[in-house]
Amino acid sequence: MRSSHFAVIGAGNGGQSMAAHLTLLGFSVRLWDIEPERVRALRQRGSIALSGAVEGEAAVSLVTGDMAEALEGAAVVMVVLPTVYHGSVAKSMAPHLRSGQVVVLNPGATGGALEVRTVLQEEGCRVRVTVAETDTLLYACRSPRPGEAIIHGIKGHVDVAALPAGESRGVAATLNTAFPQFAPASSVLQTSLTNMNAMMHPAPTLLNAGRIESRAAFEYYAEGVTPSIARLVESIDGERMAVAAALGVRVPSLLEWYAASYGTHGHTLYESVQQVRGYDGIKGPTTLQTRYLFEDIPTGLVPLSALGEALGVPTPVMRAVVDLGSTLLGRDFRREGRSLAKLGLAGMGPEEIRRMALE
Amino acid sequence: MRSSHFAVIGAGNGGQSMAAHLTLLGFSVRLWDIEPERVRALRQRGSIALSGAVEGEAAVSLVTGDMAEALEGAAVVMVVLPTVYHGSVAKSMAPHLRSGQVVVLNPGATGGALEVRTVLQEEGCRVRVTVAETDTLLYACRSPRPGEAIIHGIKGHVDVAALPAGESRGVAATLNTAFPQFAPASSVLQTSLTNMNAMMHPAPTLLNAGRIESRAAFEYYAEGVTPSIARLVESIDGERMAVAAALGVRVPSLLEWYAASYGTHGHTLYESVQQVRGYDGIKGPTTLQTRYLFEDIPTGLVPLSALGEALGVPTPVMRAVVDLGSTLLGRDFRREGRSLAKLGLAGMGPEEIRRMALE
Repeated sequence: MRSSHFAVIGAGNGGQSMAAHLTLLGFSVRLWDIEPERVRALRQRGSIALSGAVEGEAAVSLVTGDMAEALEGAAVVMVVLPTVYHGSVAKSMAPHLRSGQVVVLNPGATGGALEVRTVLQEEGCRVRVTVAETDTLLYACRSPRPGEAIIHGIKGHVDVAALPAGESRGVAATLNTAFPQFAPASSVLQTSLTNMNAMMHPAPTLLNAGRIESRAAFEYYAEGVTPSIARLVESIDGERMAVAAALGVRVPSLLEWYAASYGTHGHTLYESVQQVRGYDGIKGPTTLQTRYLFEDIPTGLVPLSALGEALGVPTPVMRAVVDLGSTLLGRDFRREGRSLAKLGLAGMGPEEIRRMALE
Repeated sequence: MRSSHFAVIGAGNGGQSMAAHLTLLGFSVRLWDIEPERVRALRQRGSIALSGAVEGEAAVSLVTGDMAEALEGAAVVMVVLPTVYHGSVAKSMAPHLRSGQVVVLNPGATGGALEVRTVLQEEGCRVRVTVAETDTLLYACRSPRPGEAIIHGIKGHVDVAALPAGESRGVAATLNTAFPQFAPASSVLQTSLTNMNAMMHPAPTLLNAGRIESRAAFEYYAEGVTPSIARLVESIDGERMAVAAALGVRVPSLLEWYAASYGTHGHTLYESVQQVRGYDGIKGPTTLQTRYLFEDIPTGLVPLSALGEALGVPTPVMRAVVDLGSTLLGRDFRREGRSLAKLGLAGMGPEEIRRMALE
């Protein structure tokens, strides 16, 4: 057993994969989940059968629904659950965090670390905790049932940024004891503004709502991201780039990101997406109750357009997707989602926002 | 030959059907079209073969591309063409209109009569012309090629409103010499705010954009207007009703309109639409270059949301559809479409708008 001790918060697809992977790498891992049923099933089985890119039967040290127990003694707390739960899980963690612990949101979507820090402050958590976020989940993975996880792929590079930004390097170094893929980013603004799920998920899902709800099967990328829809996504990406520019943050465009991540060489997003062989066979959602909407709108487009508003950068296409997505699902994502107040940035201009993201 | 003399402006589906129908009813008709090819084809053929609800070979008095010739001697000018052309056709008609002529837009969509009156004024047309609009086209019809038209159905009731409103009754009476279906409406606000195409076309088309552009065939109403999409359309309808209420105009809700038009008895729009047997077999568009977007956004949702803005009535869902539709097609429908300035209503409040619609 290695010396570092990880807590993994969330035992879904990513959480089980990471807990099993860390266990197989020789680390002590405590795995927490909010669902008593899932905790019971994992305990009963006694281990997680990991397959795919990493193979093995991983006897995770402890599976628990008790947050105090989960966090006890952990050097690093890996939060691996839908980003819409970051706020509530931060509230659960607040009384049990100890000075020196590092909380890493895998991934943070847009504003994850800022939201968690704000919640911890509101909850009166006074210990010195470093909150960090990644720009993407390390794995492409899924768990067909509790106790089984399949890692289809491991990303070659994951950016991680901490609050304060000066600790990003140290956090990356700590994570590198298990995963060499993590590298420090300039600040949480860089990771938060590289939210490609917010680009690729809500708008194409919305513009395929009819075939999704009428259960007409289709390939999400090959058939769902048509030339016009890809152009519309590029407009949204342009809004994201403008928000980043107003904050003085350099982030890749979708085209650059596809080239770097998948080796594509398209002149348009449509061409690039069509070149990604890893997308072959990925089906569109079969219900509108999909994370592509109820996660990537409130923790992606909502904070991105809210930042735009604070900075005087128009984001009409993002806002239209937020409004139509809200109406389609009968929800108010702008209210539910990551407002500037939830990120601790209410009433701030570009300079103050940059300072908040560095301190 | 009866005494009244009609001009029919536009020789597409509706124009050919109406010109042929009027001819078979014994009226003298001059049919105009902007396309020289179509004018030539119709002249060459010499008559229009009408089938369906009305059958016969109709030798239209004159087919021409010359507006002066078309309008000469007409008591009634029936404008039957896509509503986006109302402005340009008004400009073409302006020098040739004569005092006492009645111009009827079949239909006007939202703000047709107001736009045409504004263009005629701008063009310095000083003769006393009555401009009127209907809430819908009299026919469900199509023309597979010049010289052939099929009338699938004739509506039982069509509202017509004139500028000034006091002449609506007289216009309806004149039209009744040919068609008993026309009945006077309270004002052009009533006809313009009963634009059901603007409800049923742009949003469902947008939310089916993926399957349309990837050419996956689907039934427009049965499969394209899913429960969530129907709910979203009801939100748009609620915005339309709120705009009407702010102007003191009583218009039917979509549900009421479906009940009155099709005898449906659904509790929701989804249920009502599913009950319309006339919709069976109506396929969705196979391209995003469809009137459902490029007509019903600029002459429907754009003026409806512009009226909302003038009246302090929020129309966020309409606006989101306008913005996404514009981005999807790479156009600026809010600029291209019927702004308040184009309707002659710029800077006006509710009382002035009502007055403009009555005078």
